[in-house]
Amino acid sequence: MAEGSVGTPAKTEEIRIRDPFWDRYQELVRKAVIPYQWEALNDRIPGAEPSRAIRNFRIAAGLEEGEFGGMVFQDSDLAKWLEAVGYSLAAFPDPELERIADEAIELVAKAQRADGYLNTYFTVKEPGKEWTNLHEAHELYCAGHMIEAAVAYYAGTGKRKLLDVACKLADHIDSVFGREEGKIRGYDGHQEIELALVKLYQTTGEERYLNLAKFFIDERGQQPNFFVCECERREGYSHWAQKKLPIPTVEQLAYNQAHKPVREQDQAVGHSVRAVYMYAAMADLARLTGDGELLAACRRLWDNMTNKQMYVTGGIGSTHHGEAFTFDYDLPNDTVYAETCASIGLIFFARRMLQLEAKGEYADVMERALYNNVIGSMSQDGKRYFYVNPLEVWPEASERNPGKHHVKAVRQPWFGCSCCPPNVARLLGSLNDYVYTASSENNAVYVHLFIGSEARFDLPSGPVAFTQQSDLPWEGRVRFELTSVPTGGFALALRIPSWCRGQASLSINGADAAFETADGYAVIRRTWAPGDVVEWKPRLEAELVASRPEIRANAGKAAIQRGPLVYCFEEADNGSLLPALSIVRGTKLDARSDGSLPGGAVVVEAAGRREEGTWESDTPYRPLADRPAYADVRLKAIPYYLWNNREAGEMAVWLRIAEPQV
Amino acid sequence: MAEGSVGTPAKTEEIRIRDPFWDRYQELVRKAVIPYQWEALNDRIPGAEPSRAIRNFRIAAGLEEGEFGGMVFQDSDLAKWLEAVGYSLAAFPDPELERIADEAIELVAKAQRADGYLNTYFTVKEPGKEWTNLHEAHELYCAGHMIEAAVAYYAGTGKRKLLDVACKLADHIDSVFGREEGKIRGYDGHQEIELALVKLYQTTGEERYLNLAKFFIDERGQQPNFFVCECERREGYSHWAQKKLPIPTVEQLAYNQAHKPVREQDQAVGHSVRAVYMYAAMADLARLTGDGELLAACRRLWDNMTNKQMYVTGGIGSTHHGEAFTFDYDLPNDTVYAETCASIGLIFFARRMLQLEAKGEYADVMERALYNNVIGSMSQDGKRYFYVNPLEVWPEASERNPGKHHVKAVRQPWFGCSCCPPNVARLLGSLNDYVYTASSENNAVYVHLFIGSEARFDLPSGPVAFTQQSDLPWEGRVRFELTSVPTGGFALALRIPSWCRGQASLSINGADAAFETADGYAVIRRTWAPGDVVEWKPRLEAELVASRPEIRANAGKAAIQRGPLVYCFEEADNGSLLPALSIVRGTKLDARSDGSLPGGAVVVEAAGRREEGTWESDTPYRPLADRPAYADVRLKAIPYYLWNNREAGEMAVWLRIAEPQV
Repeated sequence: MAEGSVGTPAKTEEIRIRDPFWDRYQELVRKAVIPYQWEALNDRIPGAEPSRAIRNFRIAAGLEEGEFGGMVFQDSDLAKWLEAVGYSLAAFPDPELERIADEAIELVAKAQRADGYLNTYFTVKEPGKEWTNLHEAHELYCAGHMIEAAVAYYAGTGKRKLLDVACKLADHIDSVFGREEGKIRGYDGHQEIELALVKLYQTTGEERYLNLAKFFIDERGQQPNFFVCECERREGYSHWAQKKLPIPTVEQLAYNQAHKPVREQDQAVGHSVRAVYMYAAMADLARLTGDGELLAACRRLWDNMTNKQMYVTGGIGSTHHGEAFTFDYDLPNDTVYAETCASIGLIFFARRMLQLEAKGEYADVMERALYNNVIGSMSQDGKRYFYVNPLEVWPEASERNPGKHHVKAVRQPWFGCSCCPPNVARLLGSLNDYVYTASSENNAVYVHLFIGSEARFDLPSGPVAFTQQSDLPWEGRVRFELTSVPTGGFALALRIPSWCRGQASLSINGADAAFETADGYAVIRRTWAPGDVVEWKPRLEAELVASRPEIRANAGKAAIQRGPLVYCFEEADNGSLLPALSIVRGTKLDARSDGSLPGGAVVVEAAGRREEGTWESDTPYRPLADRPAYADVRLKAIPYYLWNNREAGEMAVWLRIAEPQV
Repeated sequence: MAEGSVGTPAKTEEIRIRDPFWDRYQELVRKAVIPYQWEALNDRIPGAEPSRAIRNFRIAAGLEEGEFGGMVFQDSDLAKWLEAVGYSLAAFPDPELERIADEAIELVAKAQRADGYLNTYFTVKEPGKEWTNLHEAHELYCAGHMIEAAVAYYAGTGKRKLLDVACKLADHIDSVFGREEGKIRGYDGHQEIELALVKLYQTTGEERYLNLAKFFIDERGQQPNFFVCECERREGYSHWAQKKLPIPTVEQLAYNQAHKPVREQDQAVGHSVRAVYMYAAMADLARLTGDGELLAACRRLWDNMTNKQMYVTGGIGSTHHGEAFTFDYDLPNDTVYAETCASIGLIFFARRMLQLEAKGEYADVMERALYNNVIGSMSQDGKRYFYVNPLEVWPEASERNPGKHHVKAVRQPWFGCSCCPPNVARLLGSLNDYVYTASSENNAVYVHLFIGSEARFDLPSGPVAFTQQSDLPWEGRVRFELTSVPTGGFALALRIPSWCRGQASLSINGADAAFETADGYAVIRRTWAPGDVVEWKPRLEAELVASRPEIRANAGKAAIQRGPLVYCFEEADNGSLLPALSIVRGTKLDARSDGSLPGGAVVVEAAGRREEGTWESDTPYRPLADRPAYADVRLKAIPYYLWNNREAGEMAVWLRIAEPQV
């Protein structure tokens, strides 16, 4: 296999997160997010837009009269919630939650038709129109989410009810789609079913599901274009426009990544969530089918996306028009999109690339997106969310400049299109799946994230168990204690995070130890004894970061990063008019604990300047003074993920650089 | 009268522009713009969207069969063209052009109904629906432009045909609108008729026209709101949406400046062209009716607009959503709107404020908008135009980031909504009206713009004639030679332009002379003799300008201004990736003539830096270096109005400031 390849994954027995930083989030998901979202799904959040998701299922199940409500993909909100519940029950048994979820599953099963079809929009509102508008109507997308929910719920509870629903649904889809005569040779407008079918294959062993996923991926973007043909069959009628529209152009097809075959794509384009969900499935298939061409496409798309179209916070998608990618290095901080779901999908993709090949860069990006864009999207009480995650906010502009209306200055309670909140819940609830990969081929366990946990694996050399204790994200100290080791030894591969800039020290049982590095990992291959302790200290210090000059929005600016955390400046700490501030190049960055922030956090203080200069008159423009006029100020930055957890106000990740005075 | 008030204007006999800089534009309008636009109005420009304006009139006149084409306000394009022709014929008699215009006027007259009604959209497409959708359908707007055309054509040729059409139309409107029983107590959705009726009053002496203008202004924004009532009568049907829409909100009414009575408005809001056309009419009425409350409103709106919502180029309106103002100090350079027509309307308003009170700030703004935003909108061959006038352009973003699609990186041949090109033509064609005001009350001639010209006025003390020779915008040298003077003397008041920063010298007949200043003018009151020569030398030097810190988009940046001209940096001179450049504070600014630019121009060179730093890897973010890495470069700036007259490329008005090395 290629260098860095991890080959067939070893069976992972169990990973349990036990971590001071992440336990809070796990608890938040369990105690706040899941119950809150259940209320939301049942339209019981005062002041928030009603979800109508449960009600749609009740109507489809014949239990209630009424009209379909919400988006055409509203079903997926319940599915994502059930998936999150599945993860939660796996880690924290909760009979009352399980009872509620079982009832919801009963409802879903009742809403499924005898032939396996399951979608409340078409069942309630457009019966007879099933599978006639894949381009716009999200049927396969909703099916995918229900399949993911079923897999998670089965894994978490051992209960098959929803898994049976999912298999029946997948079987139905398999009977409708394919290259055989009489079947639809098409694919979904919003990718999601592909990665879900892979999961269903992995849970059930049924190869038809894998083949169906491969079919959808392989067909995408082929000529004649399915969406074009489908649009002609619909005579151009658009669900969203509620009228006839022209046949989609190649540019419009790029929105759905259907402009050319996936193996020929090398630029991240179009709707960013669709893109990363598809890339994740491509990576799955590359691994499971040994498809080198698909792997090459995944690598190209990864490189383009993460090197040229990703914000420092791990956000992707720089325009709200179509929630989409634009082009290389176009990363405006203020008109940004950086949707929460897109970063979650980026993490899905990263994880699957790590299953293909253990390269630190995948985990670096995964960590960046997780610790910044993703957890920053949720308020610290778990009840409010950002859909758009800006790097620069001027609240008045968000309110009064229509080009920034999409950039909310405060988190919102729920959304008409509420894909993000349940997506956060399911990611955080399954975070244990992202910490490690175990490789049978290499007889190794790779540690990608430094998140305290208890882990057990079955390696070819035998079972392995250890605990990880981590002081991240606050300090660069990680400790592994092996509790069960195979006699034949195994390799423990610790990620060398990019933020330690190559400075990391290792000790084994208290003695400094050298290590080999491979693709961003410190590989310790030896025969272990129970009780062995490995200490790993990647340098974790606040630093100023710059971005490539091609990223014009950040020209002459710097941001603060400390370990995995990107920092930001808020009006609450630094006063208003943040653009008048600059940060002094080479400033000492003082990190200190600040217990007043929600959950406690390390803040960073730095030397800065605030432009001054009296403007006696009202004139907006005047001669530039020969000398700069500024006051020395002490800047205070807080972790980006904590922004807008105090009063609403301005926020900026990037500040102008001031050169130190000689 | 209040200080600075100019009272009743003196009758201006004649102003003829004779100026090396402006003659080119006058000639361009006459030889290129007017003929080109005539072709455009007749749908004869290859590759440009057809105007259909002439065709609509032919259909309305019964000369041709067919359907109405173009925008609901397409008539106004022909009107604006006729207005421009009127101005042109006044200065440059041209029998062939006059013949073509007379034929067009015949056509307009034929399209007018017997009752005076004139609008090809309603005549051809929606007969019976006249005056039922003032909010959206631009009937009074088109009427206003036809009236302005009639006044200009009459002034230019002495021919009454179009003036008769206009009077008949105005009489018809007067019979339809008013507070009397059975009349519509309403006003136009796009202000324009008001200032046109004032002109018609001034040409004909008919007070009904002045009163009708006053009625429209006074009614606007009163309760119950006319647009709300009208919308209810239409049952919400929208011309633009082609379906029913909700009753407009107060915020939506602000788009038309109809959210509250005009006398209560103090913030420039809504569609910027509508706003400034209205303010111009308010200033007219304040002057002609002595309405102090209206004058106070004009001053408040002027202050807000020019001090808090105006770009350094004299552009106004910072969002393309609704082509509108946003809020104080929100002046993004890249997502800007700064529509050409809005700056033209700003000039209309400024001129009328100068007729009310001679304050240099009005002329400063007028000059700023004229020399930068307005003439920059037109290519140097007069055939291509910008509708949007950005201060920062990244061509790839204009193409590939939908939030910047409205910012064109190259001028366009014509527009579906082609209000701007004919508006430029009519302003440049009547530029002689903007150079001076003569005040009977003060027995004075005010010189607002330094544009070479021959001028004659009738002052209370007798007739005055002089020539102005000007080296602007390249040098600060202006020379007046009096050819005819009244025995009783008079005051010559020369504007002290803000850009001379108070440094200007005066000589009379070769001898240095002191002068008194009043509200931004050097007032020379004396008894003159024929042949007297006044030399006026406002300091004209390139300087770096800064903007208020509240204008966040320009934080830490500077622009170059030289006299009335704002400068910009183009890729053609400075290479790509302009944001990597900075300009050194305190740099010597070397101005030199560059004959290679169209028309010749003074360019400015300055010391600058280009950020360097090798990025061996593909990583987008990395630690900020402890020392800045840059190369010293020689920056070259050209006048903003000349941008995009060579190859397409990046452009920026504001560059980051680099502090000089100690």
